[in-house]
Amino acid sequence: MPGLDLTADAARLTQQLVDIESVSRNELGIADAVEAALQGLAHLAVTRHGNTVVARTDLGRGERVVIAGHLDTVPVNANLPCRREARPEGDLLHGLGTCDMKGGDAVILRLAATVPEPVRDVTYVLYEGEEIETEFNGLNLLSQTSPELLEADFAILMEPSNAEVEAGCQGTLRVEVRTTGERAHSARSWKGVNAIHAAGDILDRLNSYEPRKPLIDGLEYHEGLNAVFIRGGVAGNVLPDECVVEVNHRFAPDRSEAEAEQFVREFFDGYDVRVTDSAPGALPGLDLPAAKAFIEAVGREVNPKFGWTDVARFTALGIPAVNFGPGDPMFAHKQDEHVPIEHIERCERQLKSWLGATA
Amino acid sequence: MPGLDLTADAARLTQQLVDIESVSRNELGIADAVEAALQGLAHLAVTRHGNTVVARTDLGRGERVVIAGHLDTVPVNANLPCRREARPEGDLLHGLGTCDMKGGDAVILRLAATVPEPVRDVTYVLYEGEEIETEFNGLNLLSQTSPELLEADFAILMEPSNAEVEAGCQGTLRVEVRTTGERAHSARSWKGVNAIHAAGDILDRLNSYEPRKPLIDGLEYHEGLNAVFIRGGVAGNVLPDECVVEVNHRFAPDRSEAEAEQFVREFFDGYDVRVTDSAPGALPGLDLPAAKAFIEAVGREVNPKFGWTDVARFTALGIPAVNFGPGDPMFAHKQDEHVPIEHIERCERQLKSWLGATA
Repeated sequence: MPGLDLTADAARLTQQLVDIESVSRNELGIADAVEAALQGLAHLAVTRHGNTVVARTDLGRGERVVIAGHLDTVPVNANLPCRREARPEGDLLHGLGTCDMKGGDAVILRLAATVPEPVRDVTYVLYEGEEIETEFNGLNLLSQTSPELLEADFAILMEPSNAEVEAGCQGTLRVEVRTTGERAHSARSWKGVNAIHAAGDILDRLNSYEPRKPLIDGLEYHEGLNAVFIRGGVAGNVLPDECVVEVNHRFAPDRSEAEAEQFVREFFDGYDVRVTDSAPGALPGLDLPAAKAFIEAVGREVNPKFGWTDVARFTALGIPAVNFGPGDPMFAHKQDEHVPIEHIERCERQLKSWLGATA
Repeated sequence: MPGLDLTADAARLTQQLVDIESVSRNELGIADAVEAALQGLAHLAVTRHGNTVVARTDLGRGERVVIAGHLDTVPVNANLPCRREARPEGDLLHGLGTCDMKGGDAVILRLAATVPEPVRDVTYVLYEGEEIETEFNGLNLLSQTSPELLEADFAILMEPSNAEVEAGCQGTLRVEVRTTGERAHSARSWKGVNAIHAAGDILDRLNSYEPRKPLIDGLEYHEGLNAVFIRGGVAGNVLPDECVVEVNHRFAPDRSEAEAEQFVREFFDGYDVRVTDSAPGALPGLDLPAAKAFIEAVGREVNPKFGWTDVARFTALGIPAVNFGPGDPMFAHKQDEHVPIEHIERCERQLKSWLGATA
């Protein structure tokens, strides 16, 4: 694997990162490449934690900020390698992870390489396992094993947000909803109870779901309730006695995890509901001083964040945090994922300026 | 593995066969045991074909009959080993395969061992792969590789039929019914189309299905349409773009495979329907002389067969065939599968008598 070239522009660097396939649980290669590139920079103290890489300045500034991005992606969907498309209104990079979030990772690496003396001390975190269960999340693991590395006055997560500031984030809850039946030979099906047929009612309920869209601190959120997996079946000639529907609920940050769980249990009243994964949302927190200062510095409008991001994890650690990264989040996890190069360049330029680099 | 004891009574022999686990594709052990036991009988010519064992008398009788049973079972469902239960009205054997169809296999082995000079030449066939796709079916493979071994005037399949004669059988058709959607991040689900939710309509249609129950040759059949598998999902935070429901249709023998397929395609009109497996039914054929003679000899009432059995395969080869075996087919493929010992003994006694053995 060729090394990453941190002297290349951020768009070229994004392409290099995208072409290192790093679906969750397969981040070894990209973490090695990132670590090797950062180790070459004398002004940074670099440490490795699993497939998470941390690089810190230590200039004794009165303020420290975390700038973080995850290295993993959702599964490949015939959208590799990276492809650049020329457009009159500005070129695009297409491919898995361009938007979520290797464009942001490229900005982080560029800042690390080109701003040796930032006016604020910076902790750069490039981490594994964000797209899967919390137990694999590199930021979560780091907060357990080396919490001192995450201490900061403010955090910026470079999740895709159209190069605008997005505040708060929705929570996420995953449950298994289960039907049971009774096996029988499919030739004499009237002697058994088909658990897959029984799941029809679960899907009917999901189809009738009406999302809540609460307004919080002036930002409109948008909830969701979706089957993400379904499975059932024993053999080709046996009536199945179990069917499991895995459902993902995204909830606005005015609800706690417990309230979200109660909603889902009531929604699937009468069924066996088991929680498999849960993470709280984060309120926008726009009244906190560090958040205000950043927003004023970059001078952008603030939007709500629909997706769950590790902003919530910083909130739980008592660190104000916002999302600010290149790419339209609507294209995250979609086959035609892409990022405008202008977004990448704008994020890099604004963050450099905020860190006090001369242009 | 201890050898099978063909001098034991048929109930003991059934227990021995049940305790050799032989889920489809794992018939090596039981086929080895059956082959070894039959090789010890001088009056039989034994041949092995994969995990199918054929044993023939060759006494130059004017008539030859096939007596056949499959050695495989559906998957284990916490119902091994075999357990004998004492009951005032007659003992039962419980466990996977007791009913479908190792009780019948035990009768076959007992006939092979104890009737050295039958009045009709007999071809005993104990075969693999009946519970799964046709391509693995030992009788099907034998009809392709050694069709001469299946030549006969009449065939008895010892599939469970309450030790009554069952004529004809229903056909079976398996199809995949598919929905498609569009992937999106589950936090912004309104940007995609959830293929699992779309499958709700497929399950609704299955729940509204009304089975046909045609009367044929005085026997009432009972059709069925059941989901046997369902699967869908990409990742825990991605809207799934495909969901597949595998459906098994059991159809009465007054319909051809093509007619059954047409029915299923119309039933799921608007969906992508792919046929994955198909086998025709068999009309009762009670007017054929060989069938009449057998029914008179055993002196029993005749019932319709709901399940698909290899009777249909013999019908296709031009050989009249019936089901006649121990066990209530209602318990086949169910966790509490069992067989009354009286059924096993009755089948053995009646077939011995029909083969001219002195009691």
